[in-house]
Amino acid sequence: MSASFAITAPLPAAASFADWSAAGLHTVERALEAWVPADAPAGLGAAMRYAVLDGGKRLRPLLVLAAAQAVGGAHAAALRAAVAVELIHAYSLVHDDMPCMDNDLLRRGKPTVHVQFGEAQALLAGDAMQALAFEILTPDDEPALPPALQARLVQLLARASGQQGMAGGQAIDLASVGKALDEATLRDMHRRKTGALLQASVLMGAACGATQAGAWDALSEYGAALGLAFQVVDDILDVTQASEVLGKTAGKDQDANKPTYVTMLGLDAARQYANDLHSQALSALTRAGLTAPLLVSLADRLVIRQS
Amino acid sequence: MSASFAITAPLPAAASFADWSAAGLHTVERALEAWVPADAPAGLGAAMRYAVLDGGKRLRPLLVLAAAQAVGGAHAAALRAAVAVELIHAYSLVHDDMPCMDNDLLRRGKPTVHVQFGEAQALLAGDAMQALAFEILTPDDEPALPPALQARLVQLLARASGQQGMAGGQAIDLASVGKALDEATLRDMHRRKTGALLQASVLMGAACGATQAGAWDALSEYGAALGLAFQVVDDILDVTQASEVLGKTAGKDQDANKPTYVTMLGLDAARQYANDLHSQALSALTRAGLTAPLLVSLADRLVIRQS
Repeated sequence: MSASFAITAPLPAAASFADWSAAGLHTVERALEAWVPADAPAGLGAAMRYAVLDGGKRLRPLLVLAAAQAVGGAHAAALRAAVAVELIHAYSLVHDDMPCMDNDLLRRGKPTVHVQFGEAQALLAGDAMQALAFEILTPDDEPALPPALQARLVQLLARASGQQGMAGGQAIDLASVGKALDEATLRDMHRRKTGALLQASVLMGAACGATQAGAWDALSEYGAALGLAFQVVDDILDVTQASEVLGKTAGKDQDANKPTYVTMLGLDAARQYANDLHSQALSALTRAGLTAPLLVSLADRLVIRQS
Repeated sequence: MSASFAITAPLPAAASFADWSAAGLHTVERALEAWVPADAPAGLGAAMRYAVLDGGKRLRPLLVLAAAQAVGGAHAAALRAAVAVELIHAYSLVHDDMPCMDNDLLRRGKPTVHVQFGEAQALLAGDAMQALAFEILTPDDEPALPPALQARLVQLLARASGQQGMAGGQAIDLASVGKALDEATLRDMHRRKTGALLQASVLMGAACGATQAGAWDALSEYGAALGLAFQVVDDILDVTQASEVLGKTAGKDQDANKPTYVTMLGLDAARQYANDLHSQALSALTRAGLTAPLLVSLADRLVIRQS
């Protein structure tokens, strides 16, 4: 891992969410560029970098940074958490796209990793990206990230991505193709598959600051509602947007006969549900007296996004 | 994760290595049984348990426990490290066996995970086992495993299994099929592919105690030499033993035209090399004044094993 990248200052106090978001994205890209190694052996580094650089909305890293900012967390710690969470997300996409899973050829408008580098390298790159996430959370010399915080961040990330979280949700998804799921099961699947990591992003940011129990619970509720809203909006976009806009194959879930919020609730009720979850996320913050304009703006952006 | 399994006492002071080893294996099996969840959703737990329970020599867990015992490390901490390292090893076998990698149908005398549960579930089970390893290292309520030790163990395990360690070695292996490698490259590949995790097993055990710098370096050298010896012996057994004895397909590396120590050095010189590495491992302990009969016996067993 390159040691040449040091965080010397937090993001500038920005006049607008757009400014903050642009600065945040830039910092995250630079950190990924520096910390995802080009020198991993035998092309592994190239595959890892292809999988995670230059792409994606970076929603999870921005959630980490915004939550940390809401509780006065150290920026250098939050940035490591942000990169770690994005690596977990990116590895899950690499494995998800493989022929034995979704067999997707297109991701973020580019050939998927296994198309570009072969299946075996894609499998290894995903595995190595997961390990790298935990490596990045346990640096030797980062005063902003004392061992107790390292351990806490690892715990949050491992639980969210493991058998009861993301991997568990994907197993439910795998078993659900062609089956009629009730709404509770669908919600449980998404809570794990995408919700757990989105919620963990918020909580990892929160862990970087001194968070009171009330604020922690509010951020947890915000993260859970937002995570579910994200999936509902994804399901809506899957039927309303073209592949070019999404940067991935549209209509895929429908074609695969996968249950979605749209097939279950209908398009209008799904839109209403997304809005309700958005309100629920924001009122959790308000009730706890948290002033977190960045988290509010991220919730807004998530629900009104077009891709 | 089941909370019903508590470690109440260290392994009994045993009269012989055989007794210690049997007690250690029993404890590791019980811990795996308790900590690898049966209730992971949609068959994921069943696949994970199939992959890791009831099988394997448990060399890595025994190395962790023996190293911890050599430096007076807490048994409850060492046991978590032992289980974590075995989960990483087992996940790597699951992914390695998949059709896009080695396409193996037999492992420890049983159908491989993807044969038994399908490729997608095998991919997910491996991913979830990696996450579970880091979850097990970051428990909420384990007085023997304070946060600083949690962070250190995560760091050792992530580095050993990631892009510069095991995954990196597998990438070199992948790229080497059918190629003439020189001995330095072959050694570099094995140092990463199998050596890094074996060495990390020793160091994770050592981290559980109060290790002086001299002892740490000695244990590191012991682990490195042993890790390489393990691979040389594996290469020897691949040509000298039948599949029934190995519990996996014999002659596989030769058939795949993979470079091995036997193809490179010849059988006799490979045997001599394994013995030299064994001596090197033991003299590292002696030079540092470490009295570690369990580590000595493990090194002996590793070099004279038949499978």
